[in-house]
Amino acid sequence: MCVEEAFSKLCLSEKGSDDAIGVKSLVFKPKTAKSAVPVPIVVVALQSTTTPSPLVAQATSLKDPRLARDELFQSFFKCNSAKEFSVAYLANAESPFHLLVDRQLEALDESAMLQLNEAAFIQKSELVAYLGKFESQKQCVDFGQEVAKPDAKKKQEAAAGAASAALEDAKLIGITVDKALDFPGWYQQILTKGEMLDYYDVSGCYILRPASYAIWEQIQQWFDSKIKALGVQNAYFPMFVSSRVLEREKDHIEGFAPEVAWVTKAGSSDLEEPIAIRPTSETVMYPYYAKWIRSYRDLPLKLNQWNSVVRWEFKHPQPFLRTREFLWQEGHTAHLTVEDAKQEVLDILDFYAGVYEELLAVPVVKGKKTEKEKFAGGDFTTTCEGYIPQTGRGIQGATSHHLGQNFSKMFNVSVENPLGSDHPKLFVYQNSWGLSTRVIGVMVMIHSDNKGLVIPPRVSQYQAVVIPVGITKKTTDAERSNIHASAKAIEDRLKKAGIRAFGDYNDNYTPGWKFSQYELKGIPIRIELGPKDIEKSQVIVVRRNDSRKYTVQLNELETRIPEILEELQQDLFLKAKELFDTHRVIVEDWKDFVPNLNRKNVILSPWCGVMECEEDIKDSSAKKDDGEELEQDEKSPSMGAKSLCIPFEQPELKQGQKCIKCSRPAIQYCMFGRSY
Amino acid sequence: MCVEEAFSKLCLSEKGSDDAIGVKSLVFKPKTAKSAVPVPIVVVALQSTTTPSPLVAQATSLKDPRLARDELFQSFFKCNSAKEFSVAYLANAESPFHLLVDRQLEALDESAMLQLNEAAFIQKSELVAYLGKFESQKQCVDFGQEVAKPDAKKKQEAAAGAASAALEDAKLIGITVDKALDFPGWYQQILTKGEMLDYYDVSGCYILRPASYAIWEQIQQWFDSKIKALGVQNAYFPMFVSSRVLEREKDHIEGFAPEVAWVTKAGSSDLEEPIAIRPTSETVMYPYYAKWIRSYRDLPLKLNQWNSVVRWEFKHPQPFLRTREFLWQEGHTAHLTVEDAKQEVLDILDFYAGVYEELLAVPVVKGKKTEKEKFAGGDFTTTCEGYIPQTGRGIQGATSHHLGQNFSKMFNVSVENPLGSDHPKLFVYQNSWGLSTRVIGVMVMIHSDNKGLVIPPRVSQYQAVVIPVGITKKTTDAERSNIHASAKAIEDRLKKAGIRAFGDYNDNYTPGWKFSQYELKGIPIRIELGPKDIEKSQVIVVRRNDSRKYTVQLNELETRIPEILEELQQDLFLKAKELFDTHRVIVEDWKDFVPNLNRKNVILSPWCGVMECEEDIKDSSAKKDDGEELEQDEKSPSMGAKSLCIPFEQPELKQGQKCIKCSRPAIQYCMFGRSY
Repeated sequence: MCVEEAFSKLCLSEKGSDDAIGVKSLVFKPKTAKSAVPVPIVVVALQSTTTPSPLVAQATSLKDPRLARDELFQSFFKCNSAKEFSVAYLANAESPFHLLVDRQLEALDESAMLQLNEAAFIQKSELVAYLGKFESQKQCVDFGQEVAKPDAKKKQEAAAGAASAALEDAKLIGITVDKALDFPGWYQQILTKGEMLDYYDVSGCYILRPASYAIWEQIQQWFDSKIKALGVQNAYFPMFVSSRVLEREKDHIEGFAPEVAWVTKAGSSDLEEPIAIRPTSETVMYPYYAKWIRSYRDLPLKLNQWNSVVRWEFKHPQPFLRTREFLWQEGHTAHLTVEDAKQEVLDILDFYAGVYEELLAVPVVKGKKTEKEKFAGGDFTTTCEGYIPQTGRGIQGATSHHLGQNFSKMFNVSVENPLGSDHPKLFVYQNSWGLSTRVIGVMVMIHSDNKGLVIPPRVSQYQAVVIPVGITKKTTDAERSNIHASAKAIEDRLKKAGIRAFGDYNDNYTPGWKFSQYELKGIPIRIELGPKDIEKSQVIVVRRNDSRKYTVQLNELETRIPEILEELQQDLFLKAKELFDTHRVIVEDWKDFVPNLNRKNVILSPWCGVMECEEDIKDSSAKKDDGEELEQDEKSPSMGAKSLCIPFEQPELKQGQKCIKCSRPAIQYCMFGRSY
Repeated sequence: MCVEEAFSKLCLSEKGSDDAIGVKSLVFKPKTAKSAVPVPIVVVALQSTTTPSPLVAQATSLKDPRLARDELFQSFFKCNSAKEFSVAYLANAESPFHLLVDRQLEALDESAMLQLNEAAFIQKSELVAYLGKFESQKQCVDFGQEVAKPDAKKKQEAAAGAASAALEDAKLIGITVDKALDFPGWYQQILTKGEMLDYYDVSGCYILRPASYAIWEQIQQWFDSKIKALGVQNAYFPMFVSSRVLEREKDHIEGFAPEVAWVTKAGSSDLEEPIAIRPTSETVMYPYYAKWIRSYRDLPLKLNQWNSVVRWEFKHPQPFLRTREFLWQEGHTAHLTVEDAKQEVLDILDFYAGVYEELLAVPVVKGKKTEKEKFAGGDFTTTCEGYIPQTGRGIQGATSHHLGQNFSKMFNVSVENPLGSDHPKLFVYQNSWGLSTRVIGVMVMIHSDNKGLVIPPRVSQYQAVVIPVGITKKTTDAERSNIHASAKAIEDRLKKAGIRAFGDYNDNYTPGWKFSQYELKGIPIRIELGPKDIEKSQVIVVRRNDSRKYTVQLNELETRIPEILEELQQDLFLKAKELFDTHRVIVEDWKDFVPNLNRKNVILSPWCGVMECEEDIKDSSAKKDDGEELEQDEKSPSMGAKSLCIPFEQPELKQGQKCIKCSRPAIQYCMFGRSY
């Protein structure tokens, strides 16, 4: 189609109307090697829509797009200049380009009249039909959304001209960024293209699509049955807290106040006093614990809720890891004795470690937080800590807190002394513990790869996809029907055996296209069935994580498939565990501390337990050139190392061992690392 | 203990401190018959706490408490006057009184110094110890809470001097209000004393305690598996909506705008623009449906979320029925064809009816809403409608909406035409459907009685309680152990058989006390086991709803108990169904319309389908003296009748039948009623 034809197809009209809506066509050129053929980005948008280049970059995953010069218009679209350019010239392109269409434009009525330039008008439906010719390159973009900013440091590094992280053989539909080279960009793509999550038009909030919510449901089911066996009951407390109640525990509110979202209006009326949205529910619940707990026979009281909380973080939000609203469970229990309470803290921590290790195939280290890092207002905090190999950073997995009697004294949660009413009342011992959807982000970061998501079978929404193969032009209709029917029969048998399976029998796509699709989405195994397999009464099974192939006899389907899924689950865990184990190093000399951090390790060091020393370690490890000659690692952050936890499993402390940083005697090993 | 002793016990001191906290002791007298012995209400509160009499009334469930005159101080406490009165005089009381202690006072440090009058000071711990002597009469009250107001009409009626609704034989711990005489007061007590729900310090919000949340979990499980079988997937969308998106569909937002809660601040910063909390998620979700649905192969898209939404109602809130935050599920589906969409609307409505009839034992009538009552912005709304016998009012149960293409056109949710890209794009057909925790309120209103909650076994948190009986002073320790062990063995067998059972083996309470407790809480059956039962290898089973007794042989436990539970479930449904069926009457003459409403009926009448006529019916039925001589029924509201639904199951329309109200021809029967 030449440009003249295109113009005629466009049904352009010189008769506009006064309320025609202005539309602009812009061309961006991403940063590419001089020798490479450029892949320009055409943006078709309402005149009134601003189309910032960072959003263009985000939509295409291309680096530094800039408005193109006339040379590019001439060489690529055979159009004299940017000024003359219109969508008609798209027909002249001889190699691929990106086409971004403004969602606001797409949202217009089909009958709307658009103005392309001073003299050219077109009906929206016509423009849409025309752009439809470039459907495979087209993408609809919401320019109203906020740009997902990589954190500042990353941005500098990216700008510093590191090798492009773009994957050479990636198609637009797949992942176009290399996990090893641009981890944040990869993470964002893997989540959106894998259809786990979508960005939302309120910054810091994200949509959990079925693929990720189903993982959350698996976790809920597992954890819920564990805590119910401990006697925990579920309940639901309101999401709103009055400021009076929220601010009752001072240390606690200090920890949360800067992030509290306030409702001040309902309809068109101002509320008499602002009402907070819970950032966590201690102060929501404990006034009622005080009311309900009158006697030691009311103890223990163990409640849990599955809900969402809001922490209006002003730091750069990140899907799953740091979001302004997130889903979690929060357990709040009250006990007569401190022993009973402390035992539960550890029981729950084991369940949290179980969520990571048994369900998500993510290894964690259990331990206790330092005084500096513990929960605001509590006695002590236990935690399970994970590790992200690409960044070498630790990540807090989930925490289980013992609150002691601090809140019970503040909220007067007390019971009659079992010894009699002439003995003083007893304040209860309390715990609180929470696990959030952050776990899903950690899982994705650890297992997934450049082909897409890798999801452990125990939690994935679907465990297996059945795909007919070997259908060619020579295949007769009867043969095709037979293959489809056999594949469907396999799907049915798997479902009956309790395996979350589905089939893709769409003849419009090649098996290869389907393979890529389900690799992108992280379906743990695919099951291929072709004419030869039918002859041999077998299927071919391919694992998502490493493409390992198995031939499975049909009569062994119900036993072998669960075994293969289970092996896959174990292999994911073992691989991740090896990476964590080999990057958790014991360091006893401060001179080795920073170099080891820079080698993407977390560090176990003898430590004195003093808060000032902890702060000193963080400050001292923030500089990269600590007198050492360091391997240059541009991707490693220059942030200092925080204490991650004091692991329960301790290396043996040598007699007279000094603290890694100061001259005080060491009292334990502490795990330090850069962290999320 | 005489008053002198009491004074000495009080350890009063004349040495105060400047920061001593003022404490007041007030006495209220509730409205009682002149002949009756008054049961005064003593309120001990911080000087700074206001103690409004409606809160005193609410806490004690007593009518119209007024500050007592000196006569009562003299006769009851042997104290000269209100002015001289202090807590020391409580020791003089010879008959029961209520003692309400301010939660603010209880929350003070044990060491706080209190000032009782000009010259008397006491340490808080001392006062608490003293008040502990009256523990059985004592109650801690949060005077900061809002009074749960009965609706205005009820209040007038109550004030008009109807017979007191107080139950004569009710103990303080049980329900003290008669369901038949003071339905709103009864409803409030049954929920709070049955421990289903508690009032919360943010008005219109309530706490769902485990007993009600467990019912919600049963409903979730049942409904979730039904919709998943239809191909619905769960997801989670953010609770926040930008005003731009919220206001995109005009009819829709008009319906919700007055009730939207707005977040305008985070921490101490004002947000750039206010962000709404979702009142429902159509506008939250559909921009993303537009993004995700590109081809007809992406259809149908069926998503559901279990979440909470906020509608800041300014009408009188009511637990479960009208609350500012509530839990629900909202399903949102997009279909290629209108037939597919409409079929789903009905499938979902059947599930909703199933939740009511099969799980909650509540009969409903399925039908379609009139144009006036349908969902704002949708094409049509289907509904299941319940009936509350005590008030004779209908109640909307749950609704399933067909949205047509209205939202899809507004949000541009469209697909390529399967006929080819030269055919116009197709806008999808959408549905939305929701069921909320309101269902629990309806269930409670229908089945429960003056002894407490009655909960259908299929949804109740616990289905059976095992209680040892027949233990007397003569029982030896060995016998007692044997009874306990046998009871525990029964509990274990029941649990193993999948029955949600527990046992109460606490020797400090009598079986009778326990019976009342578990009747209050609505445990469907209690299983009694005493020495004679052990001899005969049997247990006695008593049904909560009607005290019917069964003797069950131990060897039939696992078969008979589930049968008894199932019969109980059916009997609850049949009883409720009979009440609904006998109060759903066909009326064909307008003159019989209002009298039938006043007899607590809902009405099926031939109707023209015209909106003005519907409004006329409402206005005309609002007056009670419609030219008819009506049975005086003080409890029936004077509100007009709304259309509840056009039932799917229609009486046959006679030829030439006129509308019940106007002269137009009737086109169908419509169900009218006063309603919630």
